[in-house]
Amino acid sequence: MSLPSPPAMTHLIAAVEVAAMIAFAFSGVFEAARKRLDAVGVCVVAGLAAFGGGTLRDVLLDRRPFFWVEHAVWLWGLLALCAAAMLFMRARHFAPTSRAMQWPDALGLGLFTASGTQIALNTGSPALVAVLMGVITATFGGVLRDVVCNEIPTVFRDHRPYAVCAFAGAWALVGMQWLGAADWLALLAGAAVASLLRMVALWTDYSLPQWSAGDET
Amino acid sequence: MSLPSPPAMTHLIAAVEVAAMIAFAFSGVFEAARKRLDAVGVCVVAGLAAFGGGTLRDVLLDRRPFFWVEHAVWLWGLLALCAAAMLFMRARHFAPTSRAMQWPDALGLGLFTASGTQIALNTGSPALVAVLMGVITATFGGVLRDVVCNEIPTVFRDHRPYAVCAFAGAWALVGMQWLGAADWLALLAGAAVASLLRMVALWTDYSLPQWSAGDET
Amino acid sequence: MSLPSPPAMTHLIAAVEVAAMIAFAFSGVFEAARKRLDAVGVCVVAGLAAFGGGTLRDVLLDRRPFFWVEHAVWLWGLLALCAAAMLFMRARHFAPTSRAMQWPDALGLGLFTASGTQIALNTGSPALVAVLMGVITATFGGVLRDVVCNEIPTVFRDHRPYAVCAFAGAWALVGMQWLGAADWLALLAGAAVASLLRMVALWTDYSLPQWSAGDET
Repeated sequence: MSLPSPPAMTHLIAAVEVAAMIAFAFSGVFEAARKRLDAVGVCVVAGLAAFGGGTLRDVLLDRRPFFWVEHAVWLWGLLALCAAAMLFMRARHFAPTSRAMQWPDALGLGLFTASGTQIALNTGSPALVAVLMGVITATFGGVLRDVVCNEIPTVFRDHRPYAVCAFAGAWALVGMQWLGAADWLALLAGAAVASLLRMVALWTDYSLPQWSAGDET
Repeated sequence: MSLPSPPAMTHLIAAVEVAAMIAFAFSGVFEAARKRLDAVGVCVVAGLAAFGGGTLRDVLLDRRPFFWVEHAVWLWGLLALCAAAMLFMRARHFAPTSRAMQWPDALGLGLFTASGTQIALNTGSPALVAVLMGVITATFGGVLRDVVCNEIPTVFRDHRPYAVCAFAGAWALVGMQWLGAADWLALLAGAAVASLLRMVALWTDYSLPQWSAGDET
Repeated sequence: MSLPSPPAMTHLIAAVEVAAMIAFAFSGVFEAARKRLDAVGVCVVAGLAAFGGGTLRDVLLDRRPFFWVEHAVWLWGLLALCAAAMLFMRARHFAPTSRAMQWPDALGLGLFTASGTQIALNTGSPALVAVLMGVITATFGGVLRDVVCNEIPTVFRDHRPYAVCAFAGAWALVGMQWLGAADWLALLAGAAVASLLRMVALWTDYSLPQWSAGDET
């Protein structure tokens, strides 16, 4: 098990971020298509879903320049992805259902949790703050996506665990680093824990225990 | 009337912030319970209500680190408060009404107004900007709480005075400092003015004069 | 064609910003009046519409102090404008329709696009990022205005081009600078292109081509 050198780790984090952005961009395209927004709305909602969480994290951590300012090529990539997705959906008469966006969403959830937590740890944040930054990175893009589409965000409405998965994945990453695991291993383990927990919850339709009062008569 | 030393003043501001956060966290818990969100939604809405206003103020003033990054213990406190409130509501079959969150909300309004205005004055902002920062600190947590619950925020919808109370309280604080009052006295007076005005408005059901056209035939 | 000196250019950008703020403030007042918000709601919605886009741009570019912190007089101006508009609407029994806010909105769109793009270019951003900042400056105030009024933002809902106009205007500005035009000419041309495109779209009721799947049977 060879430790990657720091530049390799930086590249790994960037690769994880890019994969998460692509996954969330697809969830944004599907959500916008369900709401019958026009082509601009699709690009904006996809952009908010893809860049929103990471940008809020960078504002909170005071990290500049933003990923998408430094590497403007990814903005072009987003526009190309949206155009391709719209042409494909039109050509195939593909009407996305609300379930269709759950799988890219679950994948992006794990990847963003891991990259957000690791980036916050790199700036010297305490563990709980780093975990919270991971959860914010993972969930806030989806919150923005849902708020501009005028819905209560999935993260609050869905009684199947969502933010809890990100929370568990982020602690898995922090825990593995405390146990002395290599950084890249902890990063991938955190992403896997969060994504798999969410996917298991979707498959088994597991609900968080209801807590609200007045229901148990 | 002995002037507190600067560290004492810093501690007083921190104490006022913490009291305001607790009050707003309760308003978030009640609002989330009314919307039947799950346990995660309750914690997130309570967190947005408690930390949202102060965080936006710190982003606008470029103040780092944030309160909750520097003192991560308060994040743990928030989680504990939410867990305790949910267990209590479940045990007592306590279903919060929309009136239940008005009282902690009014208390938090005054406390955040005073701390936000004082913190902005400490960074050398002009009086009107400091007043505005006080109003933002006091109201934005509630705005976030209501936006993620998919409602028009109370602060705009409620025809009883709300932001006006924060505005008056912030000017009271600034005015007392101009008149030469001690900092701690001005701070407490500003908080009291804002909270009491709001409570009086709730008790007497006083409405701001309607201005909208076409109503007075 | 004499090149303005840098201070003149700074003043021109500031003048364009102020004109855009006034235009957006009116659109906020009209929207708030349609939703029958109270006097405070009118001022807050007008303020979000007027200052929201520019403030987000400044947060993203890490530019401080904000326009409205440095020149607090404009906050007073906003309050005066809101008071005057409310008194006028009450005196004349003027009930704004949803069409009424389209014209100040179109004007503000162009002006904010130009100032936002130019300010981002001045900080050394790449062209696409500067264009995006122009679009954000132009649209985000309107997004905030609509989100707090609990509507899907116009920019996503309206199938007539909106953000596309800002996009075209921002590229017009960047293109003219590449062609060697004077800065002030490029600034005014960008504003004119964006505003006129939007106004033409409103006049001719032109819609972006529908892309959504399943409609063409």
